[in-house]
Amino acid sequence: MKPYIVGADLGGTTVKIGLFTVDELLEKWEIPTRTEENGKYILSDIAESILKELKERKISKEEVQGVGIDVPGAVLPDGTVNRAVNLGWGVLKAGPVLSELLGGIPVEVANDANAAALGEMWKGGGQGFHDVMMVTLGTGVGGGVILNGRIRTGAFGAAGEIGHMCMNPKETAVCGCGKKGCLEQYTSANGVARCAKKFLVENPKAKTTLRGIPNISSKDVFDGAKAGDYVCHQLVDEFGEMLGHGLANIASVIDPEIFVIGGGLSKAGQIVIDATKKFYLQYTFHASRETKFALASLGNDAGMYGCVKMVIDAASDQVKEDPEE
Amino acid sequence: MKPYIVGADLGGTTVKIGLFTVDELLEKWEIPTRTEENGKYILSDIAESILKELKERKISKEEVQGVGIDVPGAVLPDGTVNRAVNLGWGVLKAGPVLSELLGGIPVEVANDANAAALGEMWKGGGQGFHDVMMVTLGTGVGGGVILNGRIRTGAFGAAGEIGHMCMNPKETAVCGCGKKGCLEQYTSANGVARCAKKFLVENPKAKTTLRGIPNISSKDVFDGAKAGDYVCHQLVDEFGEMLGHGLANIASVIDPEIFVIGGGLSKAGQIVIDATKKFYLQYTFHASRETKFALASLGNDAGMYGCVKMVIDAASDQVKEDPEE
Repeated sequence: MKPYIVGADLGGTTVKIGLFTVDELLEKWEIPTRTEENGKYILSDIAESILKELKERKISKEEVQGVGIDVPGAVLPDGTVNRAVNLGWGVLKAGPVLSELLGGIPVEVANDANAAALGEMWKGGGQGFHDVMMVTLGTGVGGGVILNGRIRTGAFGAAGEIGHMCMNPKETAVCGCGKKGCLEQYTSANGVARCAKKFLVENPKAKTTLRGIPNISSKDVFDGAKAGDYVCHQLVDEFGEMLGHGLANIASVIDPEIFVIGGGLSKAGQIVIDATKKFYLQYTFHASRETKFALASLGNDAGMYGCVKMVIDAASDQVKEDPEE
Repeated sequence: MKPYIVGADLGGTTVKIGLFTVDELLEKWEIPTRTEENGKYILSDIAESILKELKERKISKEEVQGVGIDVPGAVLPDGTVNRAVNLGWGVLKAGPVLSELLGGIPVEVANDANAAALGEMWKGGGQGFHDVMMVTLGTGVGGGVILNGRIRTGAFGAAGEIGHMCMNPKETAVCGCGKKGCLEQYTSANGVARCAKKFLVENPKAKTTLRGIPNISSKDVFDGAKAGDYVCHQLVDEFGEMLGHGLANIASVIDPEIFVIGGGLSKAGQIVIDATKKFYLQYTFHASRETKFALASLGNDAGMYGCVKMVIDAASDQVKEDPEE
């Protein structure tokens, strides 16, 4: 194992890059993501930034085990990016391209939600476990499935896309994906806010502190519930029932050791787990009642950590395949 | 790799045993499952039957790579059986016990639905694939998850228990598991029959050939639909919507290459796949629209084949771990 590893979490606005040893983060920095001209500059910007950092630290390419990169889009099992609309990318073999720009340093590629899940397993809320279902409650709902310590990519790069599980076939509101009744319509930060606003319209006489707030956010709903607002408490229960039901169905497929809950909404804290677990226990098959729940702890660094872990795992696989090296 | 392998599919009434080479089944036979006295004779009966067969064929224990056995109950990741009520078993380390009874032949243990899934992947409807979701539509609904060619057992031995995914939180009828709205209440052979009977009671004026049948089975419903009976067609659609919806949700978690559908109900044939896939495409996330569907093809032998494949895989892992041997 060579001493240095780089992780790069590629988002629609910035790229978070971290230089790591096998055990710890040495330094992290950000560069803008240039999405013009179908994102053609993104990978060369990343390569340039990494090579500059290595040069400043007098680290040679031969001392770098590899670079892990995650992208906001589907990644096929062979590492090919299959559309990343926020970057302007279509089908792109990002690994080989970036590796060449880096003068041959090996590159591993993953979807961003999957990398975050792996990062949380390695150094975050899922530390000590190998079978982790990570749930990201942000603008939408994302997910990452880690089984036996490795990312489950899926035959079409769609494993962990749990935000689009249909939870309510009778829903009339349309999800961003075009379907109706998706998990993220109820349990994302936007979804919780949407449900709260809908409730206020449909129940004009219900008294709640939410009435005084101009543009209700999920934080307002959770804050209200913590402060004892009855309507907010009901809304948190509805959130918990949808998510608990969804996670129970997931448990009946993969039966993970732990659910790790992250994303902006999870900053509300323990109330998110309490509300979810209460209904999870109602919906889950008896054998999966002991599944653990934890909050994510790496925040926006999770993807970067996951990228580094991918490189470590790839190196370890290489050793197993070529034991004489 | 030694030349012979034995697979034993342990059911509540009989044990199906097969003697295999690495490639083919040489002979299969059955012995009764003696469930008296908490099933204490089951493993010694199996060992005796296997040793007798080996002796008759003049095969020494040293020529047997291993014995795979599956059981109707939860099996933990370490191979421990965690309750098999139909056998009278509590917690039992069936592998080491049977191995000792066989004079040291290595034994692999799995849950029966999982072994059947592996068997169908190896030599049945899922042949050529490595990521298979097997769905067994019998008295209940069972499932087996095969990822990267291996059984996904689950942290608590509950992976693949998809019959108890809640599909309808508003259901009032109680499932055998104690919950309400489970997938198997609508899509098992019993479930389809239950829905048909319920429909006839709730729609006393609806004309259908089902009215003349004393105790309606799922076969009657599918036969009626094939013969053009409108009510049966509607019932098959309801079945297809429930199963298609359930499989779409599963795809958003593990994104398999193929769904293999087996169990007694699947004998109705292509109509089962057509009805399911029609709704699967409505419910699934766009990336998983190309997932394949196939009927299981090994029937009651699937478990036995899966047991043999487990032994082959364990031997292959052993070679990788100890490359010098």
